[in-house]
Amino acid sequence: MKRTHSATSLSMENVGQEVVVNGWVNTRRDHGGLIFIDLRDRSGIIQIVINPELNKEAFHLAENVRSEYVIAARGKVLARSEATVNPNLKTGRIEIHIEQMEVLNTAKTPPFYIEDGIEVDEILRMRYRYLDLRRPEMRDNLMLRHRVISTMREFLDKEGFIEIETPMLGRSTPEGARDYLVPSRVHPGEFFALPQSPQQYKQILMVAGMEKYFQIARCFRDEDLRADRQPEFTQLDIEMSFVDEEDIITLIEALMKKVFKESNQIDITTPFPRITYDEAMLKYGSDQPDLRFGWEIQDITELVKDVDFKVFSSAIAAGGVVRVLNAKSCGSFTRKEIDELGRIAVAHGAKGLAWINVRENELNSPIIKFFSEEQIQSILTALDAHPGDLLLFGADQAEVVAKVLGSLRLELGKRLKLYDESTFSFNWVVDFPMFEFDKEERRFVAVHHMFTSPRNEDIPLLDTAPAQVRARSYDLVLNGIEIGGGSIRIHRRDWQEKVFSLLGLSPDEARDKFGFMLEAFDYGTPPHGGIAFGVDRMVMLMRQRDSIRDVIAFPKTQSASCPMTSAPSAVSPRQLRELSLKIRDK
Amino acid sequence: MKRTHSATSLSMENVGQEVVVNGWVNTRRDHGGLIFIDLRDRSGIIQIVINPELNKEAFHLAENVRSEYVIAARGKVLARSEATVNPNLKTGRIEIHIEQMEVLNTAKTPPFYIEDGIEVDEILRMRYRYLDLRRPEMRDNLMLRHRVISTMREFLDKEGFIEIETPMLGRSTPEGARDYLVPSRVHPGEFFALPQSPQQYKQILMVAGMEKYFQIARCFRDEDLRADRQPEFTQLDIEMSFVDEEDIITLIEALMKKVFKESNQIDITTPFPRITYDEAMLKYGSDQPDLRFGWEIQDITELVKDVDFKVFSSAIAAGGVVRVLNAKSCGSFTRKEIDELGRIAVAHGAKGLAWINVRENELNSPIIKFFSEEQIQSILTALDAHPGDLLLFGADQAEVVAKVLGSLRLELGKRLKLYDESTFSFNWVVDFPMFEFDKEERRFVAVHHMFTSPRNEDIPLLDTAPAQVRARSYDLVLNGIEIGGGSIRIHRRDWQEKVFSLLGLSPDEARDKFGFMLEAFDYGTPPHGGIAFGVDRMVMLMRQRDSIRDVIAFPKTQSASCPMTSAPSAVSPRQLRELSLKIRDK
Repeated sequence: MKRTHSATSLSMENVGQEVVVNGWVNTRRDHGGLIFIDLRDRSGIIQIVINPELNKEAFHLAENVRSEYVIAARGKVLARSEATVNPNLKTGRIEIHIEQMEVLNTAKTPPFYIEDGIEVDEILRMRYRYLDLRRPEMRDNLMLRHRVISTMREFLDKEGFIEIETPMLGRSTPEGARDYLVPSRVHPGEFFALPQSPQQYKQILMVAGMEKYFQIARCFRDEDLRADRQPEFTQLDIEMSFVDEEDIITLIEALMKKVFKESNQIDITTPFPRITYDEAMLKYGSDQPDLRFGWEIQDITELVKDVDFKVFSSAIAAGGVVRVLNAKSCGSFTRKEIDELGRIAVAHGAKGLAWINVRENELNSPIIKFFSEEQIQSILTALDAHPGDLLLFGADQAEVVAKVLGSLRLELGKRLKLYDESTFSFNWVVDFPMFEFDKEERRFVAVHHMFTSPRNEDIPLLDTAPAQVRARSYDLVLNGIEIGGGSIRIHRRDWQEKVFSLLGLSPDEARDKFGFMLEAFDYGTPPHGGIAFGVDRMVMLMRQRDSIRDVIAFPKTQSASCPMTSAPSAVSPRQLRELSLKIRDK
Repeated sequence: MKRTHSATSLSMENVGQEVVVNGWVNTRRDHGGLIFIDLRDRSGIIQIVINPELNKEAFHLAENVRSEYVIAARGKVLARSEATVNPNLKTGRIEIHIEQMEVLNTAKTPPFYIEDGIEVDEILRMRYRYLDLRRPEMRDNLMLRHRVISTMREFLDKEGFIEIETPMLGRSTPEGARDYLVPSRVHPGEFFALPQSPQQYKQILMVAGMEKYFQIARCFRDEDLRADRQPEFTQLDIEMSFVDEEDIITLIEALMKKVFKESNQIDITTPFPRITYDEAMLKYGSDQPDLRFGWEIQDITELVKDVDFKVFSSAIAAGGVVRVLNAKSCGSFTRKEIDELGRIAVAHGAKGLAWINVRENELNSPIIKFFSEEQIQSILTALDAHPGDLLLFGADQAEVVAKVLGSLRLELGKRLKLYDESTFSFNWVVDFPMFEFDKEERRFVAVHHMFTSPRNEDIPLLDTAPAQVRARSYDLVLNGIEIGGGSIRIHRRDWQEKVFSLLGLSPDEARDKFGFMLEAFDYGTPPHGGIAFGVDRMVMLMRQRDSIRDVIAFPKTQSASCPMTSAPSAVSPRQLRELSLKIRDK
């Protein structure tokens, strides 16, 4: 009994036809001497009716089927009576009256319900992933993911890009995150590394004259996992030759427009707003600003630099800043609610949280006593504060204040529902600094990565003031989450060597780790640049999920293991011996 | 000077237009006070002409450029005079007269010529892969590969398949080939394994109700490498629910037709011939028969079972066979040539090679003296032998004879050019045995793999005669090389347990390694089956190359290393410590 139709391909147009459906028993009801089964397949659900008068044998079979049994059934499509139409079902106007039935496989009772919105321990869902993925929302996640990725491919193919597969077994060049290593059997004591990204290969492909490369690439980072991190993740990786920033930004805006439209019927507006790194840090306290709502942070350092309030003056004296988030309409917050904001501020690095509650004819605040009436007025005027506003102050080094007020802004934006959850708000962040000083390692590290080109006009600063050099990089942010980033790359050996040296790599180390790249630069490397996107994160945001695990077929737990297969696992002594390895006792 | 056109997008239609091209200096010629540069980009070549009277500065730049310099040039497209048209170049009727030029990067002299058909040590080509890939034939290989894969994806997408990414970090279940292992940092002493194929995941996806899955999947085998093997390779992986063999065979024939047509303009005829395993072994001496030419092997065991010739009679007495390859038109072979065939036979396991050279009025052969005139005549008649034929005999166990005569058939087919090299001859091999007895391991091993379903009618034989059980598997062969294989899978736990046990897995081992699959079978597993194709091999055959390394961007050497990046390499003591590993001294 081979399927003639998928469940939801049937409609009123098929009434009278004999059809065969295959699928899973979603539910079974016995009513009025008949058995009703909601049959589920990948497409959705259709009701089948088993009447003992039509086929006694089928009825006996049906009496014994339970949820998740796999069945095949042949019968005639009939219209339901008006009274029994189910408006919640795509196929709710029809049902199939069964003439023949077969049980293809039985099923034990699943450990959780196969339906949306279940509240089940995620480890249990992962252990029985094959049941979890039967739930419509999970199936839809994977189907959208397929659609997103295939639309990306189709778009890039039309634009003349070719997809090239780069190796998974590469060389370990530990910079940034930890590599996953793969021991070599043929070369005892040596290891491959799984790629953190195909960065070096894609640049080499530009040297090779491929001009327009892309890849949906699996990448690996052996890091401690957070909610939105996985040991392996999927990246849309793009690189082009003979281009500048504008070419890549234009391409990506067209790509996003098409992907959102074709895979998810969402219209997005291009071009996306661009904001400099400095402005993003100042106004939104983040280099991934969420522009779904306003609430810009304001700097009042100049205004308060002479006040007596020690929290402000000492921060400014230490080279810091004073900034304010005007929490509009939060004037009604209770002391308890404000104290909670204070705890959030402290959790993000603040020493405390100064605030002014602006009421109709008074100010409520523990700090106004430190200011003159005039000073207060000038602050309120500068901030354009009105009754009902709650002013939240940050006074510290600029990066601390940004983090604290940026976090409060996001927290309140979410709590007060300042934006429509179904909005998709994109923006570019540009003009990142090339380097930031890592206080722990006491050296400069690359903000983007070490192959990023400095801006031409900043080249002289490489020698004199590296911290001021701006990079030719760009990040794409969606709803306050970075989903992609890239840069125009260095294509000259001398510049690359200079950057390696600024990042603390000796010429020997540079040659050892990246010698082949430096050498490649000697053989006619074109100007080039690219970008990479986190596909998991993008699909997660499109589906408004909180975890990328919900858009990955077989994710790992936060301890990087798989409850279904029990990977990782011990291996045989013979396997270890072949790899010339011993386990080190703790 | 941003590119306005790729080199070969220009034609007579652009004459008179001002254009900008970017690319590499393929060659430079100075002639009659002008400089001629063949400028190469990904699309091909265009000639640019630098005239000092048009722009002195550009001319001075051009005087100093050498091969592989990267340049940008602006100028006017002009038609060449009839005398200077180059018919070998797509753009040979035009040239660009340069008004402005810029050197974007310089280049050292490459270690080999950037042109097709070079004879250069492959290790050197791999070390400078970025130069090797600039050669048109290598670029075309990668572009065809992209086209093949994107056509596969497009076809399967339209057929309702969804691509689902399965994990690279899986569980080691050593069966068959050796796994590449990945040590876990979080779980000391435990390892992930890189997938040899996504077999278990794709079956789990069928249990999950995905119904139609595919993936262009990277797979890994840590085996000793042959010419057509790589540590990592790419597989088109397909699985479907509610299907039988016919559904998959029909799907794949349509897929191949489309891929060959759209990616390479080759028309292939479907349906492909099907041949049983037994017939393939008998007639072609191989389970990957090359059907580009006839020359079927014939069995004469019955005919010669009573002759006195000891080589034949003792082989038959030991349960063996006598078979003949009629090497048509090889009757003119010299004794030396025949001796060489003998050496090939011995290399493939024969003890020697008996032969009869059929001449106009005589037979030339060292063995006819052992036969009566009558016996000889009945052999010649059975074989339909004619003057000019060379009969090559194999007498041994069937598998040895098949290998020997099958190899001779292939060798002679190639040497005598019995087929057109540009032919693409597909066939299916079906009805494989489920098991073969591994003499070394003294147990049955799976011919396809352990999840393959036996034929329904052979199920009773599982208990009584496992060697006679036929599998529901099918291999696709192209020009004598297996490019894909698959099967209908077992979907019942009891059958799977029975097969595990026949393959020598104790219930404990089965539960330890495949417990999650057995458990999954308890929860409503649909009937399902699938297939997988070697993409590298397919593209290699399409491009008529001898090595898959020529269709992989960054392949490994036969000692599984990368001459460009020097992977694998030693890693830091800190990395080893974090992974709780020590290197074992040899």
